[in-house]
Amino acid sequence: MIPRLFVTKDLSVGGTVAADERAHHYLRNVMRRSVGDAVTLFNGRDGEFEAEIAAIDKRGASLFTKKQRRAQNSAPDVWLCFAPLKKDATDFLIEKGTELGVAAFQPVITRRTMASRLNHERLAANAIEAAEQCERLTVPEIKQAVALDALLAAWDHDRQMILCAEAGPAAPIADAFNALTSRVSPTNRWAIFCGPEGGLHVSELDRLRKLDFATPVGLGPRILRADTAALTALAVFQSILGDGKLRPPHPMTPIGADISDG
Amino acid sequence: MIPRLFVTKDLSVGGTVAADERAHHYLRNVMRRSVGDAVTLFNGRDGEFEAEIAAIDKRGASLFTKKQRRAQNSAPDVWLCFAPLKKDATDFLIEKGTELGVAAFQPVITRRTMASRLNHERLAANAIEAAEQCERLTVPEIKQAVALDALLAAWDHDRQMILCAEAGPAAPIADAFNALTSRVSPTNRWAIFCGPEGGLHVSELDRLRKLDFATPVGLGPRILRADTAALTALAVFQSILGDGKLRPPHPMTPIGADISDG
Repeated sequence: MIPRLFVTKDLSVGGTVAADERAHHYLRNVMRRSVGDAVTLFNGRDGEFEAEIAAIDKRGASLFTKKQRRAQNSAPDVWLCFAPLKKDATDFLIEKGTELGVAAFQPVITRRTMASRLNHERLAANAIEAAEQCERLTVPEIKQAVALDALLAAWDHDRQMILCAEAGPAAPIADAFNALTSRVSPTNRWAIFCGPEGGLHVSELDRLRKLDFATPVGLGPRILRADTAALTALAVFQSILGDGKLRPPHPMTPIGADISDG
Repeated sequence: MIPRLFVTKDLSVGGTVAADERAHHYLRNVMRRSVGDAVTLFNGRDGEFEAEIAAIDKRGASLFTKKQRRAQNSAPDVWLCFAPLKKDATDFLIEKGTELGVAAFQPVITRRTMASRLNHERLAANAIEAAEQCERLTVPEIKQAVALDALLAAWDHDRQMILCAEAGPAAPIADAFNALTSRVSPTNRWAIFCGPEGGLHVSELDRLRKLDFATPVGLGPRILRADTAALTALAVFQSILGDGKLRPPHPMTPIGADISDG
């Protein structure tokens, strides 16, 4: 298995970059790799590259970039606006949301938000790790938490908000997305908005529902936990409005390949 | 908050049932409820009931059923066939899959399945707890693990298999489900099939792909973890072929209700 690593430096064929501290630790101490071993690199801007370890010791590692494997592409611009949850649920949401193609996570403080503080650094590290695993060419941004008022005051009205509405009138999510397909273009901007455990306060839901850029959607007859609701909405979003029609560029199990592992 | 509890006994208006050991512990030791306090009961057969605690002490609790709240309804018959994962990921899959309406979980041993043993009792307890939380009227069945060969040998050919295929030809999941909508009737039977971490072996995927009851589907360009893939397929299934058009019977935030919690 070839380690796939996010780096912050510019990447180009024939260049040498220093591994970030995290990547260095992973290559040397976790994966025990040495000079000449292959790695895959991406930085969110220049695509994905085949590289090898040019030097590695306890102080650092330098990586030599041999060949571009994929060009940078554009991915759906979808935010996930979520009320911070308990630690495990938030970690989970970042991991799964990254796999499901979230471009940016926007923590929102609502009336019933229980979690007091977010460890921004840990969430960012989780997002990088999930992006490395799932073959994304980008790492999602983790925005600073904001109060609902501030979020809405600064909202870009061209960013369509998909409001997960557990009460009141709402179109079934597939119907709502099918109706929105006419608005899909590469420049579309979207956001999934999910409330906290315990739900949005009735006044918040009423307020959000009236926004001209919001579409309330229903997620079926069961009461979903906040993280389940967010991931359900994201999964359906990608399948109907997002990049669900694309296939993985490098599948794990190449059809017809000569694999002898069992 | 009124505790919602699964019981195994028959339920009818005016009847008294003994709480199961788990429900007794929850009411007395966790929620510290006493005689006269309200509970909601369901058993997967008779619908949902408003009840109250008729007696409770350290030996047990009896619950008096006052009124039927919902009649039993039919829910989509969708299995989740999954290769057992690490403990946390399997727990997570049971919880989220229950919220997303899985009728039965079928663990399947594939060539690359890493997890050796499943704690069937713990998984069943997780499923009950998630069903109580999400207002389902049923608790999903946790089937005994079987080898892939045995699963396919006993397969009911009227149960359509949705095969999460990370490699090879596959229709985008929304397209595949839209094409299957013509087959939807209340008697339809479905199964989502997901491989283990590391993917299905090429020979397994080829074999499954050729089955006349299987539809290979693609889940987009990112490589999803096994649990993420399963939940993505389930979420999209319910939204297009399942009960995604229904609304929760008792939303948490009644619109216009007088709530003063903040």
